[in-house]
Amino acid sequence: MELKNNLTTETGWEIIQDAFDPEDLVTTGSNFMIGNGYLGYRGTFDNWGPEEFVACVVTDTWDQAKDSRWSELCNVPNGLFSEIKADGETCSLFSGSLKNYSHRLDLRYGLNSRKIQWVGSNGQGVELESRKFASYDTHNLLVQEFKFSAVKSGIYTLKTGINGEVWSLNGSHFKSGKTLRLTEDLIGSHLQTYELGTEVAIVEGVNLKGNPPEEMHISKSGDSIFREYTFHLKPGETVALEKVIAIAHSNELEDPLGAAQKMVHDALGKGYAELFTSHKKPWDAFWKISDIQISGNPEAQLLTRFNLYQAFIATPTHANLPVGARGLSCQVYQGAAFWDQETYNLPMFAFTHPEIAERLVAYRYDTLQGARRKAQGLGYYGAFYAWTSGKTGDELFPDFFFTDVLTGRPIRNHFNCWQIHISPDVVYGIWLYYQATGDWDFIVKQGAEVLFEVAHFLVSRVHLKKDKGRYEIIRVLGPDEYHENVDNNAFTNYLARYALQKACIVYDRLAIEQNETLKALVGKIELPQMARGDWQEISENLFLPQPDPETGIIEQFDGYFKLEDIRPDALRKRLIDPGEYWGWPNGIAIHTQVLKQADVIQLLAMLDGFSQEILTANYEYYEPRTEHGSSLSPSVHALVASKAGHPEEAYRYFLESAGIDLYNESKKVMSGGSFLGGIHTAAAGGVWLILVKGFAGMVLTDDGVSFRPALPETWDAYTFKIRIKGCLLEVGLNQKEISILNVASNSGSLRVAAKGKEAQLHPGETFLA
Amino acid sequence: MELKNNLTTETGWEIIQDAFDPEDLVTTGSNFMIGNGYLGYRGTFDNWGPEEFVACVVTDTWDQAKDSRWSELCNVPNGLFSEIKADGETCSLFSGSLKNYSHRLDLRYGLNSRKIQWVGSNGQGVELESRKFASYDTHNLLVQEFKFSAVKSGIYTLKTGINGEVWSLNGSHFKSGKTLRLTEDLIGSHLQTYELGTEVAIVEGVNLKGNPPEEMHISKSGDSIFREYTFHLKPGETVALEKVIAIAHSNELEDPLGAAQKMVHDALGKGYAELFTSHKKPWDAFWKISDIQISGNPEAQLLTRFNLYQAFIATPTHANLPVGARGLSCQVYQGAAFWDQETYNLPMFAFTHPEIAERLVAYRYDTLQGARRKAQGLGYYGAFYAWTSGKTGDELFPDFFFTDVLTGRPIRNHFNCWQIHISPDVVYGIWLYYQATGDWDFIVKQGAEVLFEVAHFLVSRVHLKKDKGRYEIIRVLGPDEYHENVDNNAFTNYLARYALQKACIVYDRLAIEQNETLKALVGKIELPQMARGDWQEISENLFLPQPDPETGIIEQFDGYFKLEDIRPDALRKRLIDPGEYWGWPNGIAIHTQVLKQADVIQLLAMLDGFSQEILTANYEYYEPRTEHGSSLSPSVHALVASKAGHPEEAYRYFLESAGIDLYNESKKVMSGGSFLGGIHTAAAGGVWLILVKGFAGMVLTDDGVSFRPALPETWDAYTFKIRIKGCLLEVGLNQKEISILNVASNSGSLRVAAKGKEAQLHPGETFLA
Repeated sequence: MELKNNLTTETGWEIIQDAFDPEDLVTTGSNFMIGNGYLGYRGTFDNWGPEEFVACVVTDTWDQAKDSRWSELCNVPNGLFSEIKADGETCSLFSGSLKNYSHRLDLRYGLNSRKIQWVGSNGQGVELESRKFASYDTHNLLVQEFKFSAVKSGIYTLKTGINGEVWSLNGSHFKSGKTLRLTEDLIGSHLQTYELGTEVAIVEGVNLKGNPPEEMHISKSGDSIFREYTFHLKPGETVALEKVIAIAHSNELEDPLGAAQKMVHDALGKGYAELFTSHKKPWDAFWKISDIQISGNPEAQLLTRFNLYQAFIATPTHANLPVGARGLSCQVYQGAAFWDQETYNLPMFAFTHPEIAERLVAYRYDTLQGARRKAQGLGYYGAFYAWTSGKTGDELFPDFFFTDVLTGRPIRNHFNCWQIHISPDVVYGIWLYYQATGDWDFIVKQGAEVLFEVAHFLVSRVHLKKDKGRYEIIRVLGPDEYHENVDNNAFTNYLARYALQKACIVYDRLAIEQNETLKALVGKIELPQMARGDWQEISENLFLPQPDPETGIIEQFDGYFKLEDIRPDALRKRLIDPGEYWGWPNGIAIHTQVLKQADVIQLLAMLDGFSQEILTANYEYYEPRTEHGSSLSPSVHALVASKAGHPEEAYRYFLESAGIDLYNESKKVMSGGSFLGGIHTAAAGGVWLILVKGFAGMVLTDDGVSFRPALPETWDAYTFKIRIKGCLLEVGLNQKEISILNVASNSGSLRVAAKGKEAQLHPGETFLA
Repeated sequence: MELKNNLTTETGWEIIQDAFDPEDLVTTGSNFMIGNGYLGYRGTFDNWGPEEFVACVVTDTWDQAKDSRWSELCNVPNGLFSEIKADGETCSLFSGSLKNYSHRLDLRYGLNSRKIQWVGSNGQGVELESRKFASYDTHNLLVQEFKFSAVKSGIYTLKTGINGEVWSLNGSHFKSGKTLRLTEDLIGSHLQTYELGTEVAIVEGVNLKGNPPEEMHISKSGDSIFREYTFHLKPGETVALEKVIAIAHSNELEDPLGAAQKMVHDALGKGYAELFTSHKKPWDAFWKISDIQISGNPEAQLLTRFNLYQAFIATPTHANLPVGARGLSCQVYQGAAFWDQETYNLPMFAFTHPEIAERLVAYRYDTLQGARRKAQGLGYYGAFYAWTSGKTGDELFPDFFFTDVLTGRPIRNHFNCWQIHISPDVVYGIWLYYQATGDWDFIVKQGAEVLFEVAHFLVSRVHLKKDKGRYEIIRVLGPDEYHENVDNNAFTNYLARYALQKACIVYDRLAIEQNETLKALVGKIELPQMARGDWQEISENLFLPQPDPETGIIEQFDGYFKLEDIRPDALRKRLIDPGEYWGWPNGIAIHTQVLKQADVIQLLAMLDGFSQEILTANYEYYEPRTEHGSSLSPSVHALVASKAGHPEEAYRYFLESAGIDLYNESKKVMSGGSFLGGIHTAAAGGVWLILVKGFAGMVLTDDGVSFRPALPETWDAYTFKIRIKGCLLEVGLNQKEISILNVASNSGSLRVAAKGKEAQLHPGETFLA
């Protein structure tokens, strides 16, 4: 079927592009990317380079670029570079004529494939076909099948190997390295990063099939190394190769070059078909639980799968590492975790693949030391998590992020020091993981320490207003980043209380059940004796902005209602330059009620227990004032609109969120002078939230789960699976009813509720409402 | 003698300008102004208008201009307008030729006089002479003697009367009014202000002397009304008039027009000479106590008198009204009081003319209700004084003051809501008045209420950091306005403690001596029962940034030392536009240690008890980092440099401060898009501080006063008088010794100390050291 943005799908499992549009370089490269949570490889053409945004982004390679204030993941040299010349003319998407262009991404297995027929200026040309995937079996590997056949008789050259010219957003990361012919068959590139001296190795090998070359030699140039083949081909004669590259680095492996060499050698021995078979298994396992099947609306089906796909390949499953805000689609946002990880990406895994979710929460435990250093550096105790968190958890967000496009002056954004909700958000994620899995063991071994340290941090961050007899949180920045330097931000204060309460719960349960463990932990982190009491006292006396008794509206922060009440479209007219940042220090939104994203809506999406009236009142107040300058905003609006009784708006926001990348809905490639392209990973995770927490209205209860369905009008039905405390449930919804199957192989029963009905659901039983 | 800026003086009691420079319009108009604390009349030429910055600024006429966000004093129509034509050609400073130009300001009696010989293009011309003063006997009156004589025979016309074309900085203040011929002799203008409908009346009358006119008629045009005289004159024949105008308004007088008419009528009856005689008495009384005589340095003598003159005429002595930051020299800063009033202008009067000082502190009592309203509006208790304070004490400072000259966007300066030291400053002023006068009765009747309400405000403004067991003051702006939004500003915290301590002292003394009065006051202002305890607890536990044990330096605010350490000149190179504001929100200074004025220096200038080492260490640290973007800065630097053992720098800063207006040292007529011309009244008061607290090192002691002289090298000697608790002292300093005479007519004795000597000084005795 036809999709927007000149895309089609056949089965709802692939996206297909039938024409090449140079305008869409950035978007297409992101949307057609492949990856495996270890690396991301953009959907670019074989002979492209930095100008076309070719990138192979590798996790766990954080390093500060030369002459830069940025620590970010490295783009590594492109080992999948290939260039064909037919009688001396380069086969290019930018010249000659293209026929039968087809570019596909198979979502089921993360397979990027391409066919073109290219004819050059002298009538000479090639038919080219390639397929590639980032192995889920051996995450260091990229595997490609590449073949071309001659249109006319002639001399064809193929230059293939490792292109060392790297697109790097904020300066070069590599000292000039070595390029090597490792063996008769293998070539490699061996580099070191500037700051930390991390070793990175790319090894490439090929199995050459089809017509043999007349000649082959190795060429080197700068940091690049290529094989150059010459073929004499007659019409229809074909050259085929299986290419394998391995990317390894010293943060993971001791001898990256040797390890990569071995991996490529072994992989070449297996060949493309066998490698692909092994690669398919983890994908099958993923989709078995995670697929959401929608009937009646193929577009919604495809969009949903596309987002699940992007959310999955962005997430490291091989180690405890963060999910980047742009996944591994580019270097934007430094390949590091933000609060999005807990609030947008974790939930899907917590309820479908808890073993992946565990890696994410364990990552926060692993980075506790960095969070402690950040707190200390700013004069606080405990754990203040990094706004931008890489390997160590030290703050990667620079003091100056945006540039004032009107003056060229750097802007001191305070995301790193004032957006303190990150620490409660981490607690939220851990608690969500615990609620979904019941994994108390994780809490005991890792979670408790995080919770205590966050609570400890909050004690040192709140202020007591003696005249009002309450604690306040002063000078923060909520998720709505247009309003810096505000007090008693509703989202921040509610989440802070949430975190303090969970710390108390865990403390008390440990005191009763595992007092020795508690003592050891208290000793280890040197928790003061009154800490537990402080947490409770603060959580009980922390000021929480209450719904107005008349209107039900919660004020986003102290004084918000006094700001100018204007709508985003009217406000936009005050822009002097369309690339201006709307927020601090003097952007157009700061003295108005216009929001980047609505903190109260975010709060209502995350914490349960607000009444329908409150949901509706706040949605109706904040939604028209929200500019959605954040890609996180539409999904949470879809979710809350659904709960607030606005199904049409919920669906509109669902489409906006789900299409943000595929349909290039967020045209904002630049903001405040910064390149912000790439996949919006949080929005991808947000699609799962909309479908499960929004349209199905899933809410965890003390002993199970309840649903409050609000199916989009145009859908006949949809089904998804969730796992709660080990029980796999199959949930089906149509316009009339909801069915919940407790899968027969489960061992436990669960309380389920929907539409006023309630039941204890045993394995093999189905609940209908 | 020659002064800078093409000025001379003869006796050290006048400034004389011998040539006219159109470039200096703004400065000359301010420097040669006359006034009497009720009105200020700029030193402009008789036929000038708005383009030449003619202004007659009248206190107590605050009103919001039409279509403006500004409440400010009104400029009223110019009743001293006169224009001469000789055979049809206008006598103008901008055309024809000028001979024997002389423009003088007599500082002893506030007399502005001018002589010119003007010759027009056809050789026709006049010799013109005029003198004018703003009466200190009847403050509503401006009195002028105006005469001219013919160069050649011809027809001379004189148009004289009330020019209704008014220079008004931020929009028109008057609805179109009435111009009237009141009697045969008097004409008038009767106006109403836009916002509050204040009635303003200007009445003009003349005594015509010398040659009689051929003809006279009254002409009106818009809001102007003139007499037009025609004379046939022969060479040397003279026309002379005595002009009197009265300016009255309904905030002072019930029937302003009638009152003004009577005043002019009576004054014309007396004539110029008698009016001037009455006017001289208050001036004699002022200089008798306030003159500071310097020998060996005529320039320093003149500069000192010039500043004492400007400080005096800026200060209302007829009613409890504020001293404006630009006095009555123009509308800049709204003719309203800032913290300068207490910290720069009050001290001189407290120690020389306590009856004037009492008006200023009583003004703060009178405006307590406005300060309460401000506190309440911002969610606090007690009294938060206006940053910009007019009649009622309600905040006049607009939320948006500066404009970003780079983007044209208004800047939200937080002077009004974050510069909270204003309330402790008011307490400082009251306490200074009390210390200087011993006027406990004022404290009982008015001061106590202010002190308690300020303390009450501080209770509601501080935050308790429970983890640190201390109170903090968060999000303020110190006198250094380049750094907004800072915490634990040294100046603010020390002054806040000072204010809390004084409130405790007064409370306790009242409890012992006048408990019924205390009870009545506590009841009146509804002070909570624990208030007294809270003040003490907070004052004892308020965090005060301490001198670093190694360096002795006090950090200006939390984190100041971590800011970029750069010098003002190097920083200045980052300006994109020379008119840029350096501070909030993104000016060049905000992320650096560069200061507008140094808060710690200000603190050391105001509070005694810091050691010589601390004075020196902090002066040496902060001075090179200070840009002196405020006109208040040089005088306080002179004072502290003197105490810190840097006499040369002290003298350099003295000259800078004393010459700021006369020498036009502050070239900053515009900043951040705002006109900021006019007399720097605080700097004028600051000159007294330098000479008495700086060079003489005067410090009040428990039972008297001590001195620590540091005479400038180039001075032979200087003398001044001060009054302490009713005792008038004559202090004389030369390079070798200091003499202190307890004037014989005093009734009490005083403990005096200097240079290690100490004595109880009885009336008629002289102390030498």
